Amino acid sequence: MKGEIIAIGDELTSGRIFNTTSGFAARHLFDAGYEIYAMHTIGDTPELIGEALRRAINRVDFVIVTGGLGTTDDDLTNEAVSVALNRPTMPNLEILSQIRSHLNKISGNPVSPLEKLAWLPKGAEALNPKSRMAGYQLVHDSKPVFFLPGIPSQMEHLMLEYVLPRLTIWYSDPTREVRQKMLRVFNMNEIDVNEKIAALKLDHSVKIGYYPVFPELHITLTTRGKNSDECDILITQTANAITSSLGNVIYGQNQETLEIIVGRLLTEKKMTIAVAESCTGGLVSHRLTKVPGSSAYYLGGVTSYANSMKSRFLGIKTELLQKHGAVSKEIAEAMAKGILASSGADLSLSITGIAGPDGGTAEKPIGTVYMGLAAADKTYVQLHHFEGTREQIQEISAGTGLDMVRRYLLNLI
Amino acid sequence: MKGEIIAIGDELTSGRIFNTTSGFAARHLFDAGYEIYAMHTIGDTPELIGEALRRAINRVDFVIVTGGLGTTDDDLTNEAVSVALNRPTMPNLEILSQIRSHLNKISGNPVSPLEKLAWLPKGAEALNPKSRMAGYQLVHDSKPVFFLPGIPSQMEHLMLEYVLPRLTIWYSDPTREVRQKMLRVFNMNEIDVNEKIAALKLDHSVKIGYYPVFPELHITLTTRGKNSDECDILITQTANAITSSLGNVIYGQNQETLEIIVGRLLTEKKMTIAVAESCTGGLVSHRLTKVPGSSAYYLGGVTSYANSMKSRFLGIKTELLQKHGAVSKEIAEAMAKGILASSGADLSLSITGIAGPDGGTAEKPIGTVYMGLAAADKTYVQLHHFEGTREQIQEISAGTGLDMVRRYLLNLI
Repeated sequence: MKGEIIAIGDELTSGRIFNTTSGFAARHLFDAGYEIYAMHTIGDTPELIGEALRRAINRVDFVIVTGGLGTTDDDLTNEAVSVALNRPTMPNLEILSQIRSHLNKISGNPVSPLEKLAWLPKGAEALNPKSRMAGYQLVHDSKPVFFLPGIPSQMEHLMLEYVLPRLTIWYSDPTREVRQKMLRVFNMNEIDVNEKIAALKLDHSVKIGYYPVFPELHITLTTRGKNSDECDILITQTANAITSSLGNVIYGQNQETLEIIVGRLLTEKKMTIAVAESCTGGLVSHRLTKVPGSSAYYLGGVTSYANSMKSRFLGIKTELLQKHGAVSKEIAEAMAKGILASSGADLSLSITGIAGPDGGTAEKPIGTVYMGLAAADKTYVQLHHFEGTREQIQEISAGTGLDMVRRYLLNLI
Repeated sequence: MKGEIIAIGDELTSGRIFNTTSGFAARHLFDAGYEIYAMHTIGDTPELIGEALRRAINRVDFVIVTGGLGTTDDDLTNEAVSVALNRPTMPNLEILSQIRSHLNKISGNPVSPLEKLAWLPKGAEALNPKSRMAGYQLVHDSKPVFFLPGIPSQMEHLMLEYVLPRLTIWYSDPTREVRQKMLRVFNMNEIDVNEKIAALKLDHSVKIGYYPVFPELHITLTTRGKNSDECDILITQTANAITSSLGNVIYGQNQETLEIIVGRLLTEKKMTIAVAESCTGGLVSHRLTKVPGSSAYYLGGVTSYANSMKSRFLGIKTELLQKHGAVSKEIAEAMAKGILASSGADLSLSITGIAGPDGGTAEKPIGTVYMGLAAADKTYVQLHHFEGTREQIQEISAGTGLDMVRRYLLNLI
């Protein structure tokens, strides 16, 4: 089964916004066993939209169109579809009544440009009329055509929740199986990982992909076959072989982030954590608290950017700061011990370093980062030298700190 | 002058690799005053490559093709070009002799798959025959067609060093100018902004685009013309008219983020800030410290997730927490006052709320967020009701907090 993807928007053809939705759709369609014949990106020009759509419907089995479904004057997709496929727009009554009752509630004024969202080409079936997301399906020349918003979060949601399940039913093929697994690596580079995996001489029917997602590396394993059990066994065997070879640089699988893994380990061990950050400026706390339910193990943190904050909140003596400087083994240790004591947590992490672009010296260049980890019985300090922009040094420092906590909880430190 | 961009490769249509080269080309072409009619991504299929190429040459003034120029079996671009444009491949003698002398030096064996790089469609002019980068130009139907490698670093180098300069000469048009400006909006939705702008009856030669980038809205103004000064005046007049109409919901222009604007205002007023966060879990501190030089005005923050942290670090009495609950006007105020006093900053921001997915009640549903702002002489508290996922509520809360600081510093509160 072949499909085409058409992304619409002047912001894309001017290069101002990167088109991420087409790649997202392509990856998920590929994983589900479909082939992408072509992907197109065009501006907000109705004739061009119509032409691309008609050509796609003629040559492939399904089409996905993203963008141009909003309420503003530059949203022209429905108009273009209406003309190209000879389907006059008409109001979808369910969406219209949703909009009117929403408007009534918030403003008492039941007339608004929002109503544009309800006017769809004839035959359109809204994907989720109860939500505030635009998005519908047409069947034209017996082929399904999906129209999705250009906003990545909405597009991705509708793609996963509606488009893929509907395509599966439409083109059900019980003999096509596809399995994919992702292994998440922290602290080993692509070349070393590639070399170790190449030495394993793995079954060629599992396709291996390497995706550096700074500062991590994600390895994907993909296999296709007629037999579901065989696919499962093949993927599991391959994942096991790679895991044996790479060891504990693999920290998680699929959607498991470092903060999810750390949260799970803390929960299992019934431990709480607190954080004292300097150069990462709250990023470790932000990542930990992204996880739903993190309040069960994360007590809180201090972002002690100024030295006065280090003294006041972490009890660090001014003399110690003057003697060693804020970026030092001694201060990292004192920060970790300080937040452990004042928070009452079971475990603490501290990070102090120089993220740049200013503040580097010959002795302590930009990228010098100390990390401390304190528990009731022991304290650890590590020195790292990172490279990159300010944001990259902040990102890799936060990741390395979370990985240090993971390693401590797994007795790997 | 209009162009099309064709990217070739199965790794792109499977979504395994993100296509970044087309966006790169589009941005630079747009900035140089060209218009992109369409961008296509297709797999390693010669018929499809040929068809896309012929169609593009027919309808636009220049074409850029990337990918499929390498030495492996799946590199099929030259073969496809040869057939589609009826130009038999023949060896480029300069490239061939380069390859042979290189091979002689490294292996003594002058026959290799590398020689495939020298066989180009008739009429091809190598862009940089002395380099090891593939890449050439054809002139077909009097239009320039550029073929570039798919490897982003090589493609980008050849694009900047050869394609753009050659296009400038080919279509030399000293009268073509393009200007763009972006206005960044916080706290006004797309529909209201659109309505206000539509009512202005602006000059139609400035194209207006609306891009929601959660939780913000970005408005782009683009104009093209023959006269550089006229373009500048037109863009400035339009931006001024929109700014007069929308007022202070426009917080910045182009690349100015909220944290950059807040940092600039604090620097101008020689003020320092400290932050006490609960439901945003460090995100405000993280955003403030993304800005280089933020240590000059950001003293630090406390992420007081657990109530014990609110007491210990912010001096909030247990009775107050028990009486009003952590998510309340009183606690938001106490947090802001607490961090102001303990940090010694001139200004403080506090955020306490329910980000979900658990913790909501009938009285205080998920999305209930209180924000406090304290200065030496005055304290402000705001109540917000946000909607969305945990991450969205955290994002919009952090943005609203930063905007509250901006408004205070501009005397808009």
